Amino acid sequence: MYSLLFPFQCLPFSFLILFISVSSSPHNTPRLRLHHEKIRRAPSDTESASLVSENLKTYFYTQTLDHFNYNPQSYDTFKQQYIINFKYWDGAKSNAPFFVYLGAEAPLVWDLPTIGFLPDNAPRFKALLVYIEHRFYGKSIPFGSMDKAMGNESIRGYFNSAQAIADYAEVILYLKRKLHAQNSPVIVFGASYGGMLASWFRLKYPHIALGVLASSAPILYFDNITPQNGYYSIVTKDFKEASKTCYKAIRKSWSEIDKVASRPNGLSILSQKFKTCAHLNRASELKDFLETLYARAAQYNQPPEYPVTMICSGIDEASEGSDVLSRIFAGVVAYFGNMSCYDTNMLDYSPEIIVGWSWQRCSEMVMPIGRGSNDTMFPPSPFDLKQYVKDCIRKYGVSPRPHWVTTNYGGHGIKLVLHRFASNIIFSNGLRDPYSSGGVLEDISDSVVAIHTTNGSHCLDILAADESDPKWLTKQRKEEVKIIQGWIKKYYVDLLALKQ
Amino acid sequence: MYSLLFPFQCLPFSFLILFISVSSSPHNTPRLRLHHEKIRRAPSDTESASLVSENLKTYFYTQTLDHFNYNPQSYDTFKQQYIINFKYWDGAKSNAPFFVYLGAEAPLVWDLPTIGFLPDNAPRFKALLVYIEHRFYGKSIPFGSMDKAMGNESIRGYFNSAQAIADYAEVILYLKRKLHAQNSPVIVFGASYGGMLASWFRLKYPHIALGVLASSAPILYFDNITPQNGYYSIVTKDFKEASKTCYKAIRKSWSEIDKVASRPNGLSILSQKFKTCAHLNRASELKDFLETLYARAAQYNQPPEYPVTMICSGIDEASEGSDVLSRIFAGVVAYFGNMSCYDTNMLDYSPEIIVGWSWQRCSEMVMPIGRGSNDTMFPPSPFDLKQYVKDCIRKYGVSPRPHWVTTNYGGHGIKLVLHRFASNIIFSNGLRDPYSSGGVLEDISDSVVAIHTTNGSHCLDILAADESDPKWLTKQRKEEVKIIQGWIKKYYVDLLALKQ
Repeated sequence: MYSLLFPFQCLPFSFLILFISVSSSPHNTPRLRLHHEKIRRAPSDTESASLVSENLKTYFYTQTLDHFNYNPQSYDTFKQQYIINFKYWDGAKSNAPFFVYLGAEAPLVWDLPTIGFLPDNAPRFKALLVYIEHRFYGKSIPFGSMDKAMGNESIRGYFNSAQAIADYAEVILYLKRKLHAQNSPVIVFGASYGGMLASWFRLKYPHIALGVLASSAPILYFDNITPQNGYYSIVTKDFKEASKTCYKAIRKSWSEIDKVASRPNGLSILSQKFKTCAHLNRASELKDFLETLYARAAQYNQPPEYPVTMICSGIDEASEGSDVLSRIFAGVVAYFGNMSCYDTNMLDYSPEIIVGWSWQRCSEMVMPIGRGSNDTMFPPSPFDLKQYVKDCIRKYGVSPRPHWVTTNYGGHGIKLVLHRFASNIIFSNGLRDPYSSGGVLEDISDSVVAIHTTNGSHCLDILAADESDPKWLTKQRKEEVKIIQGWIKKYYVDLLALKQ
Repeated sequence: MYSLLFPFQCLPFSFLILFISVSSSPHNTPRLRLHHEKIRRAPSDTESASLVSENLKTYFYTQTLDHFNYNPQSYDTFKQQYIINFKYWDGAKSNAPFFVYLGAEAPLVWDLPTIGFLPDNAPRFKALLVYIEHRFYGKSIPFGSMDKAMGNESIRGYFNSAQAIADYAEVILYLKRKLHAQNSPVIVFGASYGGMLASWFRLKYPHIALGVLASSAPILYFDNITPQNGYYSIVTKDFKEASKTCYKAIRKSWSEIDKVASRPNGLSILSQKFKTCAHLNRASELKDFLETLYARAAQYNQPPEYPVTMICSGIDEASEGSDVLSRIFAGVVAYFGNMSCYDTNMLDYSPEIIVGWSWQRCSEMVMPIGRGSNDTMFPPSPFDLKQYVKDCIRKYGVSPRPHWVTTNYGGHGIKLVLHRFASNIIFSNGLRDPYSSGGVLEDISDSVVAIHTTNGSHCLDILAADESDPKWLTKQRKEEVKIIQGWIKKYYVDLLALKQ
């Protein structure tokens, strides 16, 4: 279990997405808002669009397949989707800003309803809202279908972050030309993987983005900059802080599951105990399910429900004298609600994500997440690069490049490097988010800053504001807005000075 | 003559390189030190190496063909040459710096003898000297031979600046690891095209290069940031400043050549008058030769000879009453010395350069250099992008991407963009260098600075210091050294602070 599911998506829906299990591969990346609402299917494109707003207009840009080479195939093109909301924009004449959301590892329309930070703040900034889809997701798949694109070893090779941010560069420059808005400052937003893209975009294309809000971007979770167990240490800490007894029960449960499973009929007993929809074939099916559940609960440990607290309440409130596994099951029920049965695959995520992200992880997104013995509440599972590489070669025929991200974008000694280089980046994190272990948590300079909240979870700041938001979250967002205002103000001063 | 030869190489030898004419294409890029020494052939590798020093060790790095994709072909490798001089290095323990020269559009060993700035200053900095060859030049050609590499449309596609600077990134990181010198600051040097690469390297890989000296790097000669006639305006100015009568004679000569050529036997008359080795077939052969001569004289208008002055002296001192063409020929003789005949191809440059650079110009290095009517001392020759693109497609089957350099590296509004981003770049120029018209001539911030000399020519500062150097040149180099010392000093302070 060297590369246990990477709980990496950012943007929860207001529903749980229940999919047919796509793969039992450990390369899953959850994409869920974890609370006990009724489980629903994923939204269709039409539904997503209608969830959003009528102010959105969809366009397609004829995008270059390969920006970095000049082989004949490099010149192939594909249609890249981008969506614009013109409603709040004060226009080119007043050099009103662009707010650009960089799509990540999902169809763009899935993200749109959740990126509330942009429309929430667009009126204040009189900003044009631009959302650009990531290549190979949603409607931006070269050669039409994911089957065709990913089935061809030559085409899927163009599916990577450097190409993706070059796509964004082209679309933004095109829009600025088209809207005669050459002097409009561009603020770029991204979250989770998209947050990494956003921060890298500011570093690689400072002439296109004036500044960046990179929400929950674990850019240091590469090449062993961050300790392997960073992620699960925080999951553990979250549970421990919620309830010590709960944490202890979970910690104890793994060997208990193994013990029961090893008995005659053990898997039947476990299947009954956990009311699994299908009979368990291996104890690992149950353990993976629970592990995913805890990891996601921690990652998306959002107010007002706080899923970790929810699960721990279930575990702690189980009738006295219950055995460990009954208490664990009580946690599952507390979280999902009472169901006729529990599908151990229900936390798997959709093919739209899994197909693409599995490839990305096997090419450049090699994040060494693992666990030692006794350093978390989970069973040990050290990251094994050799095995990882082997699996990827078996799957795709090519080896990942585990050092490329740090070669191309940096990461080692980031404070030393960026202290006197770069500007206008906000790295925002919630410290309860397990991925914050790979985030930038310290200010690097006056304008490359880290803003984090002690109680925040993954990408919380970039979601829509809500009246029920805790004060610390509102404060975090206000601070971000203030910083962005500062960038733009300085930019206008510079612009004026140069024109005189 | 839309894209007249681009006098783009930087580093003169102590001889003139006389080659068989490779191509009459206007895509030539001169690579010559223009003075009236005896004309010699190009150096063999052995000669070049012996010209340099016995302290140099040659290595080869197994380089990735395509850094930016994950197609099976991307994983192909080639041997990239790099050369190290360990003599002055104070070692990893004292975090002594690396001085890295980024190879440009020529075999590395050709450049080595001329980049005197590095060995001149290495003792003071106790620096390791590293010279890295540019892919597809010299000994760093994928698949062994230029014929094979360039004859294959798929392979030559990997021949571009983004791949080249990624190569440099990999080699430098590899060396830092290998020499356990992770904390040694890296200062990167480049000149002319190599200077562009150097400045782009600092912008794209700030985590690898602490600072950059970009000598005579016309990074703004793209995408019409610089007026088309920038280059030839300066050639004209140089001649006018040297001698108004000389300038007038040249200005008048073009129509005179045409007039003579249009007579019966006119080309024979011209051939005799200019003592051409071969009979002229077209007047343009002579005009191109002269134009190249004047352009190079201006570009490499170095002390102590000052080729422009040399030519103008010939023209001005021609016996009184001479006709214009005799005076022009006297300029040629003053420059080259008395020869039995003058080969109009003798300013063409070598196949080692021309084959590669022609491709680079037809893929991404689209520098719109042209001339209008009466804005220079030359006949009009506006840059015609359409024709340029057409010619490239005919030649290579693919179109250049004229906007890619500014999309990827920036250039438009550079002061606005980099004023509050980036640091530690010196853009050095000599204002008599025609390419300085596309250079950065104004300070952008406290640490992104422009250092130029009124009387300097192309890449003068990066050549070896000489006792005969004028004061202004010595001063320029001193200033550069002082700035680099400042970067390194600050770096050590930062390093120490972070370790505490």
